[in-house]
Amino acid sequence: MNEGGGQVPALDPHTPVGHVGERSLLRHLRSRIPQGPGVVVGIGDDAACVETSPRTLVTTDCLVEGVHFRRAWTEPSLLGRKALTVNLSDIAAMAGVPRYATVSLCLPADLPLSFVDGFYDGLLERAAETGVDVVGGNLSAAESLIVVEVALLGRAERPLLRSGAQAGDLVAVTGTLGAAAAALHFLDRGVRWRGNGTLEGADSYGPDVRSCLIRCLGAHLDPAPPLAFGQALAEDDLVHAAADVSDGLSGDLLNLCLESGLSAWVDSSAIPVDPAAAQLEREGGENGFSLALHGGEDYEMLMAVPPENLEALQKVALVWDVPLTVIGEFTAGPPRVSVKFGDTLRRLKPQSHDHFVDPLREHRSDPSRGA
Amino acid sequence: MNEGGGQVPALDPHTPVGHVGERSLLRHLRSRIPQGPGVVVGIGDDAACVETSPRTLVTTDCLVEGVHFRRAWTEPSLLGRKALTVNLSDIAAMAGVPRYATVSLCLPADLPLSFVDGFYDGLLERAAETGVDVVGGNLSAAESLIVVEVALLGRAERPLLRSGAQAGDLVAVTGTLGAAAAALHFLDRGVRWRGNGTLEGADSYGPDVRSCLIRCLGAHLDPAPPLAFGQALAEDDLVHAAADVSDGLSGDLLNLCLESGLSAWVDSSAIPVDPAAAQLEREGGENGFSLALHGGEDYEMLMAVPPENLEALQKVALVWDVPLTVIGEFTAGPPRVSVKFGDTLRRLKPQSHDHFVDPLREHRSDPSRGA
Repeated sequence: MNEGGGQVPALDPHTPVGHVGERSLLRHLRSRIPQGPGVVVGIGDDAACVETSPRTLVTTDCLVEGVHFRRAWTEPSLLGRKALTVNLSDIAAMAGVPRYATVSLCLPADLPLSFVDGFYDGLLERAAETGVDVVGGNLSAAESLIVVEVALLGRAERPLLRSGAQAGDLVAVTGTLGAAAAALHFLDRGVRWRGNGTLEGADSYGPDVRSCLIRCLGAHLDPAPPLAFGQALAEDDLVHAAADVSDGLSGDLLNLCLESGLSAWVDSSAIPVDPAAAQLEREGGENGFSLALHGGEDYEMLMAVPPENLEALQKVALVWDVPLTVIGEFTAGPPRVSVKFGDTLRRLKPQSHDHFVDPLREHRSDPSRGA
Repeated sequence: MNEGGGQVPALDPHTPVGHVGERSLLRHLRSRIPQGPGVVVGIGDDAACVETSPRTLVTTDCLVEGVHFRRAWTEPSLLGRKALTVNLSDIAAMAGVPRYATVSLCLPADLPLSFVDGFYDGLLERAAETGVDVVGGNLSAAESLIVVEVALLGRAERPLLRSGAQAGDLVAVTGTLGAAAAALHFLDRGVRWRGNGTLEGADSYGPDVRSCLIRCLGAHLDPAPPLAFGQALAEDDLVHAAADVSDGLSGDLLNLCLESGLSAWVDSSAIPVDPAAAQLEREGGENGFSLALHGGEDYEMLMAVPPENLEALQKVALVWDVPLTVIGEFTAGPPRVSVKFGDTLRRLKPQSHDHFVDPLREHRSDPSRGA
């Protein structure tokens, strides 16, 4: 899968990757990638060889141009960070420790080398932040489309499954919801956020809206799952089940219900709608509630918490500076999710992100989706 | 990364995957995938959890439509088999035992469900043949292109690296070379090979050519790397270094030279040109030699063998019914490959498959590439 060493020629960043060629590009990338102590064989052989514990977590996720991102919306380095982050979120939701990643890039031949270098800048920065070694780097042409696939291995301390929820467990979620989805509308209108925090294309907005844009576009382009909090959950049996909120609260909670054979309800007034998302939505006459329920890409953690463990869990959340909100309860019953509006319980139809049905759609609130 | 359980609705095979939706499709696939004893958590959670030994091999490889395959050239089930096989070949070349695979499919929304089912038919059949558990199944839309990415974990018995060759080691290769590459020209002309061995679009050819077409198209569409032989090499120290011949002998041998810091020469008369490839090439006035050197996708094993171990290695090859040919020698010197024509030694410029430079090109022999 990988490519040999040898001299690495100096490469002009404007060169199209098709001119660099697969072998030179792999040699070039390999020279950039550090090799940590658990890596027996890194990039450069048919397969990598890594030290593993008796139980290993494996996850893979891809970012497809036009479906998960647009080239104009993001910087290569942010795309690199996010490609790893979406997998880190999966490992954290299993209470695991991320270890080794393989990166597979399918690239149009006319893409400049600087794109690939920028992508690896971001990915390797994120890897260093999280103790991950990149051990495989596959490259291929693709006719017109960038496809990024990262597979991530992790150490499974005590894997936290989706299937462990019990009737009476509280539904709890970290952070706030809806920020990443609120960004889509503005990305589509040409607003840009750079990794250094600056905004572009937002001059017509006032300072309040601009600060909300920084928050929401940042959440979309450089998500920050509660990784340390997730890992910490391996230490005690505080939580019965967990999942990351990648597809949207409605769908991911239904998934916990399906896996655990339970119903769940959430209180509409308890859902932690991201304040910045709510403010951006108010510009369009909405309140962000629909985005928080269905928007997706929040990369927060959704948990089933026995009530007697709540206080201890809140302490863990405090240690890791992670907001924790109880939003409902798991109950005996067929797999379904309901939302409480005051005294009224309405069954929720999951409307979460489905990349087949609705790639990079405009995420405007739609009251009919609310409940 | 994965999707929950619950009832699996009966699905019409003609339904476009975009109508089925990501969640239903994942549920549908999950219901088809068996879970072996080493799988602690299979498809259906944020990550899979698998039992691993202290050292684990990791490899990933992708098949991109228009670059590695064409939809018209192959059947979905053969594509599924090959997606796993190209990774199996990497694990075998490390003398490893394949264990767990994740499968990531990026699919145009209008692709019928039957394609995905056929793909999994082939992939799961190949997985069962080789003792592999499929533990992750990611799905995404892609605008117009099928991209298949398989990551494969293996048990590293005693990993056989590319970097271990020593001066004086023999260059040995399994099987024959050039068959897969010889197929491209005929696939491009509309000849088709079905998994059951039948040919289509080949009525104008005589029985001899037809039997060569069956051999070469089969090698291209359903490669058969020497997996058991590769695994067996973990038992003794018979071989100093190994790689699979995926990009072509010239490039893969140069790679062993680069990794081991050696030169190598091969004897032109010793290279095991596939007889069927040679016969098909004769139709165009060539002899298959160039395809055997540069064609790629052979998925045979290339090895550095100390001369004193050759006899023992030949016995292992005999046990596993794998043809083994000594084609040259590693020598002290800068990383380069030369070809001996009689008494003349000519330096070989690697011309192996580079998917950026030359996606699915017509692999006609070109005498200028010969040496």
